Amino acid sequence: MTESVIINGEVTSNGVVSIDDRGYTLGDGLFETIPIYGGRPFMLDRHFSRLTGAAKKIGLELPLDEARARDAIADLVERNSIETGVARLTVSRGQGPRGYGIEGCDEPAWTLTCRPYTCLLANERDSGFTLSPVSILIDPTSPLRGLKTISCMESILILAQAKRLKADEAVAFTKEGNIASGAAVSIFWVKDGKLFTPSLSCGILAGVTRGIILELASQNAVENEEGMYGPETLKQADEVFVTNSLLMVAPVTTVIGLFKRPGPGAVTEKLYSLYTDLIKA
Amino acid sequence: MTESVIINGEVTSNGVVSIDDRGYTLGDGLFETIPIYGGRPFMLDRHFSRLTGAAKKIGLELPLDEARARDAIADLVERNSIETGVARLTVSRGQGPRGYGIEGCDEPAWTLTCRPYTCLLANERDSGFTLSPVSILIDPTSPLRGLKTISCMESILILAQAKRLKADEAVAFTKEGNIASGAAVSIFWVKDGKLFTPSLSCGILAGVTRGIILELASQNAVENEEGMYGPETLKQADEVFVTNSLLMVAPVTTVIGLFKRPGPGAVTEKLYSLYTDLIKA
Repeated sequence: MTESVIINGEVTSNGVVSIDDRGYTLGDGLFETIPIYGGRPFMLDRHFSRLTGAAKKIGLELPLDEARARDAIADLVERNSIETGVARLTVSRGQGPRGYGIEGCDEPAWTLTCRPYTCLLANERDSGFTLSPVSILIDPTSPLRGLKTISCMESILILAQAKRLKADEAVAFTKEGNIASGAAVSIFWVKDGKLFTPSLSCGILAGVTRGIILELASQNAVENEEGMYGPETLKQADEVFVTNSLLMVAPVTTVIGLFKRPGPGAVTEKLYSLYTDLIKA
Repeated sequence: MTESVIINGEVTSNGVVSIDDRGYTLGDGLFETIPIYGGRPFMLDRHFSRLTGAAKKIGLELPLDEARARDAIADLVERNSIETGVARLTVSRGQGPRGYGIEGCDEPAWTLTCRPYTCLLANERDSGFTLSPVSILIDPTSPLRGLKTISCMESILILAQAKRLKADEAVAFTKEGNIASGAAVSIFWVKDGKLFTPSLSCGILAGVTRGIILELASQNAVENEEGMYGPETLKQADEVFVTNSLLMVAPVTTVIGLFKRPGPGAVTEKLYSLYTDLIKA
């Protein structure tokens, strides 16, 4: 079957953009990755809300609203027969005069793909993730802070360094030495039954799954705290896990040099279970 | 006339890339903008050498060498009848598995455009550029430092802020308060006949034109110094100018709040003249 994609509202099997699209030339745009369970996008409202906030910050007028995104995803889910999968919505500033200037870029453009995707498998959950501290430091004052732009080179280099260190993902620190995040994951840990995660002021993305986990914790009597924490807190942790929209809640069994345990811990499993309940709801 | 472009070595009038190209999805690639004078690329060797160095740093194997780039530019110059213009060579990591990981991205891709372009006009040279200090700070320790990647969002936001402040370009400072660069220009100034410019350790791009200007100064008895300088040095300057491959040497008549003079100064004009001599050579 030929895959259908949507480009600026048109369904097509020809998934291309102009080499003059500022997404391609300058990384000038935003994206969201939305999981699809049971043929339906999960938490699309939160993804779209983050996209809307970021678009305002970079001065890009979104060429579609949430309802249009929902319709487009439903359309591709059906055409591509997706049960469990992932939608990627990319919005770029389209084409315009040469250079970095945004004046004259009056036609933002968007593309949507919906593809089959299998999240973490049971045996991967059992063996757990390995994280590695990396030497690339996060700048909490960067103007890109909290924006999910398609200018991803920093995250690409962070993940590449973690992989060279034989890890699945990274632990990046802020310039002040506080735990920030991985390349594409939010980091959580548990100490004496309490849940900890870096605050957004560490220059991290406001992960959709991160937000849900904090809410689930609060709703289910898991004490939790966001803040600035040094590496020693990971060293002393009882459990560590990472989240993102596709991994959901993934147990970490090793943080190189800091943390080691045989398998997922009780709080990790509890939050994973609460999260998957939400998906089934 | 339909414009010809080259995509992965093939001449085509259909200038598109896949929406799965990591250039478009993740800003995962590099580019060079090379001026064309008299139908020939200017300083292609230096541009290609910078590209080669950056490719090594991001772990991307270039899918073409300098000779191939030269041939490709010559081909498009002829097909598109370019006398004075600009070539843009974009190299991306191509397609690969989803996510930031670079494993499995084994087919880097490239695109080349050659278009007519007119550099700074005489009347623009006379009126001069206006720069504005911006609040976005440059991080000299960023792993993207000195790389001309297509993850350009920071530069886009810097220029957007300068434009909001009614300037043509920016003066961005490092976190330590030293002058770094504009969004797409290197900054120079003159005091008592001596030329100053921020050193590369300020986290700036090693501009090709910047390098040539420093060499021309040394070869022509213009004392020059690279270093770390605060805003007060711009305030005390006799002349200010900016450079890039397309603007060449552009006089600055206003740095908002710091510097004002009616027109280009003598050292600026001397270096501009030496630079244009190189082009004619």
